[in-house]
Amino acid sequence: MSNENTYNPHVSVDCVVFGFDSDNLKVLLIERTIKEQNESYNDKKLPGSIILNDENLDEAASRVLTELTGLKNIYLSQFRSFGGPERTKNPRDILWLENTTQLKIGRIVTVAYVALIKIDRKILSNSEETSANWYDLNDVTKMKMAFDHADIINRGLEYIRHRMDIEPHLLFELLPRKFTISQLRTLYDTVHQTRSDVRNFQKKVAQWSYVVALEELEEGVPHRAARLYKYKK
Amino acid sequence: MSNENTYNPHVSVDCVVFGFDSDNLKVLLIERTIKEQNESYNDKKLPGSIILNDENLDEAASRVLTELTGLKNIYLSQFRSFGGPERTKNPRDILWLENTTQLKIGRIVTVAYVALIKIDRKILSNSEETSANWYDLNDVTKMKMAFDHADIINRGLEYIRHRMDIEPHLLFELLPRKFTISQLRTLYDTVHQTRSDVRNFQKKVAQWSYVVALEELEEGVPHRAARLYKYKK
Repeated sequence: MSNENTYNPHVSVDCVVFGFDSDNLKVLLIERTIKEQNESYNDKKLPGSIILNDENLDEAASRVLTELTGLKNIYLSQFRSFGGPERTKNPRDILWLENTTQLKIGRIVTVAYVALIKIDRKILSNSEETSANWYDLNDVTKMKMAFDHADIINRGLEYIRHRMDIEPHLLFELLPRKFTISQLRTLYDTVHQTRSDVRNFQKKVAQWSYVVALEELEEGVPHRAARLYKYKK
Repeated sequence: MSNENTYNPHVSVDCVVFGFDSDNLKVLLIERTIKEQNESYNDKKLPGSIILNDENLDEAASRVLTELTGLKNIYLSQFRSFGGPERTKNPRDILWLENTTQLKIGRIVTVAYVALIKIDRKILSNSEETSANWYDLNDVTKMKMAFDHADIINRGLEYIRHRMDIEPHLLFELLPRKFTISQLRTLYDTVHQTRSDVRNFQKKVAQWSYVVALEELEEGVPHRAARLYKYKK
């Protein structure tokens, strides 16, 4: 093995953070602006960055998410690393990386993490440093995305879909603390790519002992207020 | 971000290859010899190496496994990356790395893969280049291991245990094409860390439509020959 065939790739972490707004699954993205001569170019990227010398991968993921979105104490699961040489085939990505990091960068291997959070968590958006916002997952394919981040998001979605098959309680990470059965059904159908019948879904949920009806109705809705439920561990 | 805080780690792949010898789960390891002044030091490591410039992570894992063990066309699943700075805290590991790769190495992030194979697959062992052999998984904790490879093996085992809960057919990747119920039970118990009752296990297997009895008995055994079974997809 010689130096010729192995220059050091940089290593980064990227966080795929999912939320749910009662209608759609959302993903947290950063607006990126690249200045090119007289014009500037905009696209979206995952919250991510190069790892630092003294931190491990999990620490890097937490640090980067906090720096770019303000989110703290988020449970991040590592789900896959992405490292093909074609990840940096777009000269715009390289230009942006080198401007941001002040490093000469050839190749980046990124370790991807996924998190499920409640969408009302406070996000540090539109500060000077960063501009993080929720985007509809259905729109990701239509948006201009940095690197292979559209692919990473898809793989992250596959991963949570798979995990929710085994650990259905993960659904409740995405719901408000008090939720309606209609919200639960919409989320369930979105994740599992199904279209549940309203009555059958009611019956199914009635068998989930961890979904508990509250003596409360939703408030401030234009339709008849539905009963609220909570998840009991 | 400055250069001071981010030097490039190297990126490697490591393969955790499991086999089953009718009694125990085994893992495929490479004997490593490190020459130190007048003496030499021996320990074991996973088949792994630095990735090359022009290959992606999956390609690197397949190439490295073939180079070090002769195994070809093995289905490798990426399961986790390991990247703490303490991975290279042992000066012996650094010495060996630098001798082997002719590179100056500070830190290595490794992307780990797992494979399940039949133990009678031909392994290129004790060649000039390499020395790959099967080792009992129970002995790994007692052996001297390179880097954090003992930890990577444990995480690999957790991963396959978890996957076999969902995809029980993976068990049959480790069994011979024709197997006895006793072999199947031993493997099942080893993976799930259980001790199944012989009769109850027979009843359980009777319900697995994909386990089919053959009109054949095992041969050349000192005890009464047991019926052979096969896995039907």
